[in-house]
Amino acid sequence: MAPLADLYQLTAAYGQWRAGRAALPAAAELFFRRGPFGGAPALAAGLAQGLRCLRAFRFSAADVAYLRSVLPSTTEDAFFDYLATLDASEVTVSAVPEGSVVFARVPFLQVKGPLLVVQLLETTLLCLVNYASLVATNAARFRLLAGPDVKLMEIGLRRAQGPDGALSASKYSYIGGFDYTSNILAGKLYGIPVRGTVAHSFIMSFSSLEEVQPRTPPQKANRGELAAFVSYAITFPRDFQGLLDTYCVRRSGLPNFCAVALALQQLGYRAIGVRLDSGDLAQQSKEIRQVLRACGAHFQVPWFETIPIAVSNDISEQSLEEFQREGSEIDMIGVGTNLVTCPLQPSLGCVYKLVEVNGSPCLKLTEDEEKMTIPGTKTIYRLYDAAGHPFMDLMALEEEPSPSAGQELVVHVLGQFGETSKVVPTTVETLHRTYFRDGQVCEPLPSLPEVRSHAQVSLSLLSPAHRQLHQPQPYPVAVTEKLHHLLTKLRQARQ
Amino acid sequence: MAPLADLYQLTAAYGQWRAGRAALPAAAELFFRRGPFGGAPALAAGLAQGLRCLRAFRFSAADVAYLRSVLPSTTEDAFFDYLATLDASEVTVSAVPEGSVVFARVPFLQVKGPLLVVQLLETTLLCLVNYASLVATNAARFRLLAGPDVKLMEIGLRRAQGPDGALSASKYSYIGGFDYTSNILAGKLYGIPVRGTVAHSFIMSFSSLEEVQPRTPPQKANRGELAAFVSYAITFPRDFQGLLDTYCVRRSGLPNFCAVALALQQLGYRAIGVRLDSGDLAQQSKEIRQVLRACGAHFQVPWFETIPIAVSNDISEQSLEEFQREGSEIDMIGVGTNLVTCPLQPSLGCVYKLVEVNGSPCLKLTEDEEKMTIPGTKTIYRLYDAAGHPFMDLMALEEEPSPSAGQELVVHVLGQFGETSKVVPTTVETLHRTYFRDGQVCEPLPSLPEVRSHAQVSLSLLSPAHRQLHQPQPYPVAVTEKLHHLLTKLRQARQ
Repeated sequence: MAPLADLYQLTAAYGQWRAGRAALPAAAELFFRRGPFGGAPALAAGLAQGLRCLRAFRFSAADVAYLRSVLPSTTEDAFFDYLATLDASEVTVSAVPEGSVVFARVPFLQVKGPLLVVQLLETTLLCLVNYASLVATNAARFRLLAGPDVKLMEIGLRRAQGPDGALSASKYSYIGGFDYTSNILAGKLYGIPVRGTVAHSFIMSFSSLEEVQPRTPPQKANRGELAAFVSYAITFPRDFQGLLDTYCVRRSGLPNFCAVALALQQLGYRAIGVRLDSGDLAQQSKEIRQVLRACGAHFQVPWFETIPIAVSNDISEQSLEEFQREGSEIDMIGVGTNLVTCPLQPSLGCVYKLVEVNGSPCLKLTEDEEKMTIPGTKTIYRLYDAAGHPFMDLMALEEEPSPSAGQELVVHVLGQFGETSKVVPTTVETLHRTYFRDGQVCEPLPSLPEVRSHAQVSLSLLSPAHRQLHQPQPYPVAVTEKLHHLLTKLRQARQ
Repeated sequence: MAPLADLYQLTAAYGQWRAGRAALPAAAELFFRRGPFGGAPALAAGLAQGLRCLRAFRFSAADVAYLRSVLPSTTEDAFFDYLATLDASEVTVSAVPEGSVVFARVPFLQVKGPLLVVQLLETTLLCLVNYASLVATNAARFRLLAGPDVKLMEIGLRRAQGPDGALSASKYSYIGGFDYTSNILAGKLYGIPVRGTVAHSFIMSFSSLEEVQPRTPPQKANRGELAAFVSYAITFPRDFQGLLDTYCVRRSGLPNFCAVALALQQLGYRAIGVRLDSGDLAQQSKEIRQVLRACGAHFQVPWFETIPIAVSNDISEQSLEEFQREGSEIDMIGVGTNLVTCPLQPSLGCVYKLVEVNGSPCLKLTEDEEKMTIPGTKTIYRLYDAAGHPFMDLMALEEEPSPSAGQELVVHVLGQFGETSKVVPTTVETLHRTYFRDGQVCEPLPSLPEVRSHAQVSLSLLSPAHRQLHQPQPYPVAVTEKLHHLLTKLRQARQ
């Protein structure tokens, strides 16, 4: 994993090493500059994977040999010997607990250690945190839209960036609030609940009732479809579900399903659901519910009317809004492309910036105001109001005393420089914990279901104005007077 | 790799096995329904990876044990024993050569073999082909926009779906026409040329000239930046490049760069480039070129005026169009997020559909006309006109004789059912080759550079109307009269 870096990090590393600066104490922070989805909060994720990577951080002999072939030929041999000795044992990482709500510009991961290693970790950590946080956040949005009762299933394996991208999608969708994944490998590796429906290919593979073992008498509607349903019901009597739209939902899929489900009922089994994968899903779900109700009443099978209806087919946030608007009868939603590729926000845009080297705070002050960094090693506090909602994140220099609950604080809200604000938090939370020290993970890492619960709790604490999906109220992020003073001083010195 | 599948494929597999249908001969096809980017052609990619996966296709004891835990408890033991014996030795795969231009609805990969295995491969193959083809296509678009001379570098490692997604991005961007990647691991694993520039973190890590070894006299402009440049130049005298925008390009970055580059020149070295990562890139590139020209003239250093200017910062297709419109002086472009996450077309939407089982053609005839499949196992021909441009892809049933060059063909263009068209191809190409048979790859696979060249050739054959990036002329895809007849017959039978 060591060479999971951009080449310029290695040339920079050589530069630092040659300047005798490799071991200087340094600190870097990971954050995103703008809230995703038009300024919303995000869920921090990917932390555990990042820590595993740190523990294994080493350049193998093969890595070193490869680097020797791509770095300039003037690179000294001793540098490669040095690389072969590197590890992350002198690195300390603090972060918010995985699954926490985080806001733009607030660092949610901090790395301290020798300058050279701290720099080398940039891309590795970004690569592991960026997408993980994005997809967890995206999943949480689908969960908020779907409400607590509808089941959400991640089905993006075939649309992800290869097997590993798909595994990340499954894992972090689950963290963000999905219930299931269709990805068997994700189930096997991470213990995420897997679920399946019925595949079109299964239905299409039957063309006549002659193909069912044992044979059944012919009927109306599509016979291949009926054959497939019968065959499926015989195979999975306790788990029969119908995929209704291979031919025509109304004229074929639904009557075939009802026939087979009623037959199963006579044998003492209950069908577990139907699935739609095309057409107007909300409208069809209502029609299907009507038919199921009528069928249940007519044949005196009361459970028929609550047979779960599952849908898929390019489901987006907009689809969920439509389902709600139209009062759909949908019980389970499979989301693929729009979950794993996240077209509304293709990347979270996390960055990793040096904030201190050898005791001196660093500042990046570019043409883009937004790309400016906040210098110095910091402690991050989340301030809560009397209703228990967080109302501000506050960055303070590490050496400053912790703010106290119930006491007035004078702060500078980012984006409102010059002005000060006074706030009185009812509760003050220190956001970060130290997770990695002396080459080891030093804080117990929660299980995936624990992270998933934490994410829901973290989201539920937000005030409605900050939680809303469209045009959420901007969440204030502030710095202390002391940090503001440092920032002003450095800006003036650099101009 | 075997369980890289959605759960419903395993339940379908059990259904087929229990119905005694597991070994029925079957055929499936992989294609996309709509051309990406508003109807454009795509580059087929991911084939070699798919073939490697086929060769290794097996369920391990651990896979089987896991599946036992998630399939319904009524699943027979004998099925799990059967799964443990499965491999892809009876599967035959044909496909277009990797890197070929492909069009909507034309299968670019065909799988034949026992029904159960053919179905099980669906998600695995889609997962490996979908993103690979998408990012190769996306890269090819950037290449078309940039023209042949500008260097394109993939820098998406930190924005991809984890390490593996990033590796795919690097590999398939290269195939699509990129020159370099910044991803060291991709360089090491695939031999793709890696390049780097200078990192902001390197520049920011210096705060004063005191930090340079050996010491240099102080100057105007930002001193930390100058220190970083000097240090970099000392470290890489033959590879010095300046990252100009950590503080201010005009007042600091550029003067510092010129000073250091001129000093290096006196020692007999040439700086290799500058880089911008913020602001108006096209405008700045012109200003920088002016300064470099003036500087070169003043100090009689002629090579100064051609120092390559590299840019990055959320580069999109639109950025490239702007660069061209403004007559920029940019020589190298780094593309990250918009290359690897492809927001204009987040997924290629490839599907994998059964077309024949046990000698009978399959048809999926749903509420969405677009989701209808073309039944039967087919041979695919590409027809070329006298100018050497492909003008039509033609699907024929496998048993039909091959069309001949120079002879009139009667075809049905998809989307114009009912009408027939007559065409006379100057050349007829059989698009697919057999790549996998008897458990082995049976056709030599080209190297990445060979695939990359093939992609460029394949694109260059397109007529300008089909190649254009915006609103390309729809490319006609047709079926033979015989296939059209089969399709009509099946549609009528199913309605």
